[in-house]
Amino acid sequence: MEKRADYDLAFLLRYENVAWYDEGKVRILDRRIYPIETRFVECTTHREVAQAIADMVTQSYGPYTAAAMGMVLAAYEAKGMSYDKRMQYLRDAAYTLSHARPTTSAKMERIVGGALELAAETEDKDLIDTLFRYAFKKIDDTYRSYISVGRHLARLIPDGGTVMTQCYADTVIGTTLRALRESGKTAKFICPETRPYFQGSRLTASVICDMGFDVTVISDNMPAYVLNKKNVDLFTSAADVITVDGHVVNKVGTLQIALAAHYWGIPYYVTGNPDPAHKDISRITIEERNSEEVLHAREIKVTMDGVKGYYPAFDITPPHLCSGVVTDKGVIPPFCLDRYFE
Amino acid sequence: MEKRADYDLAFLLRYENVAWYDEGKVRILDRRIYPIETRFVECTTHREVAQAIADMVTQSYGPYTAAAMGMVLAAYEAKGMSYDKRMQYLRDAAYTLSHARPTTSAKMERIVGGALELAAETEDKDLIDTLFRYAFKKIDDTYRSYISVGRHLARLIPDGGTVMTQCYADTVIGTTLRALRESGKTAKFICPETRPYFQGSRLTASVICDMGFDVTVISDNMPAYVLNKKNVDLFTSAADVITVDGHVVNKVGTLQIALAAHYWGIPYYVTGNPDPAHKDISRITIEERNSEEVLHAREIKVTMDGVKGYYPAFDITPPHLCSGVVTDKGVIPPFCLDRYFE
Repeated sequence: MEKRADYDLAFLLRYENVAWYDEGKVRILDRRIYPIETRFVECTTHREVAQAIADMVTQSYGPYTAAAMGMVLAAYEAKGMSYDKRMQYLRDAAYTLSHARPTTSAKMERIVGGALELAAETEDKDLIDTLFRYAFKKIDDTYRSYISVGRHLARLIPDGGTVMTQCYADTVIGTTLRALRESGKTAKFICPETRPYFQGSRLTASVICDMGFDVTVISDNMPAYVLNKKNVDLFTSAADVITVDGHVVNKVGTLQIALAAHYWGIPYYVTGNPDPAHKDISRITIEERNSEEVLHAREIKVTMDGVKGYYPAFDITPPHLCSGVVTDKGVIPPFCLDRYFE
Repeated sequence: MEKRADYDLAFLLRYENVAWYDEGKVRILDRRIYPIETRFVECTTHREVAQAIADMVTQSYGPYTAAAMGMVLAAYEAKGMSYDKRMQYLRDAAYTLSHARPTTSAKMERIVGGALELAAETEDKDLIDTLFRYAFKKIDDTYRSYISVGRHLARLIPDGGTVMTQCYADTVIGTTLRALRESGKTAKFICPETRPYFQGSRLTASVICDMGFDVTVISDNMPAYVLNKKNVDLFTSAADVITVDGHVVNKVGTLQIALAAHYWGIPYYVTGNPDPAHKDISRITIEERNSEEVLHAREIKVTMDGVKGYYPAFDITPPHLCSGVVTDKGVIPPFCLDRYFE
């Protein structure tokens, strides 16, 4: 992977929130157990990559890089096939990868769709290399976009302030904390743990701690109390989808923290760009995951037999509960997101 | 323990949410691990009872019965002392027991205070028996009050309806479900798990399941989404304190569910009687417990070293977010609670 002076690829690789293709394999950090253990899932087929996405081996930006690298793996699998067979194989792979999880499939389709277009005009012998360069460019473009988002978000954080997060994409954390440091500011962070997978305590808090900032974990029933008690200055989250009409689809829990922030008069800023494939929420499917997950904590059963579980993975926060969308072009009011595309 | 036809003491004993004095020992079900394991803590001094309350071996109504039975144990310890020494010993015990946890000490003081008054006029040889009868009467009175609360709450639940709970005292669950059944109604229950101790998944859900009602556990980040998605008819919680001016002090998380219920137009009913010792919230202390608890799940660490935790045990919901207080005298609007004492 080439080095760039203007961003820290080492950081990206350190947290391995990018999936990585190399010689017939895609390697993905198993974020379900990180940082308790640093373990990788090695996929030898694109179907295994799709399964890893479905199993939430990786989350946040990880699935997009996994899908892009999964297309490289599909090209490896299709090596030696005739043009028509190869393209059919890649189209099937693109569908499998982009539909591994329902809520984000529109954005996934754009990523694998770009790979398909390239594949259509590339010879077999160059295909793996071409698709790898495409996947890397996607990571690179996204990271550049996140640098910009991080800078805009850092400007909104008062020096010495307190920030509450919710399932805050670790790449955006990295760029935000770096931007904070560059501008000579500090801040404290409070992270709800984000059950059932504890992304908040395991992933968000680890990155913040590792980068030398003060970070406190609370459980998911505490945000409304803590926002007020700890004089939180702003609430921020990433988003799986931001619709053009300003709805935020993000990790379940975002809505109730946004409601509490609104109640206390604390701004809520979402990071990310609006998704042109979603004018509104009409085509959003909220993924429902295996309900066994909420009946367990770190694999230990916490309920009696006979008790059911329910696990919606996302919720939707309406635009009037969001104070601003921090895009790579700047902060835009949620009701004016069409301006992003001008 | 004597049997009464009009309530089910077997139910009380089965869940052992009463502490029990017998021959120099107080036995308390360890609710930190129930129902995964049924284990009892045996206290041989009133100080051990106070420690068990502080350690949350028992919660909900449990600490009040533990304090009352702890006074019996203190009388056992003081056996043979002179009157003055004995009374001093009991006063110290009363203070230790009632201040084991800060948020509920006013109600605890009333319970141990009653025992002290009786002790002042009782001979040493009758003391244990007298204080045991007092403790039992407190349990009996409370259970009768809960039967009434349960009946009033059951009337508010539509037949076939869906109820969300938050750290719902198991005795009130029992009386409510029995009242529902008596009136020929059924209902589904949704219980947030209530981290870090999982009281919702372990205790509330177990009682509901065991009594044959449909119950689903969700994690604490899901209520705002699920209230709407599952067409919840009402949200209900118990309370550690209901102030006379209508504030609800209850397990942390209640406030944000009440905010979400208010947002969706779903009523929130709190069960319990207003506490005459608390006109308002000025004398309420929100207990902060060991922050290590939120960094672990069922004793497994879920964060990186260096990440801090914060664990406020309660929050305060203001009266305008509460639709009614279900007391043993009926449902009273939260702004009119002085009528309860008329």
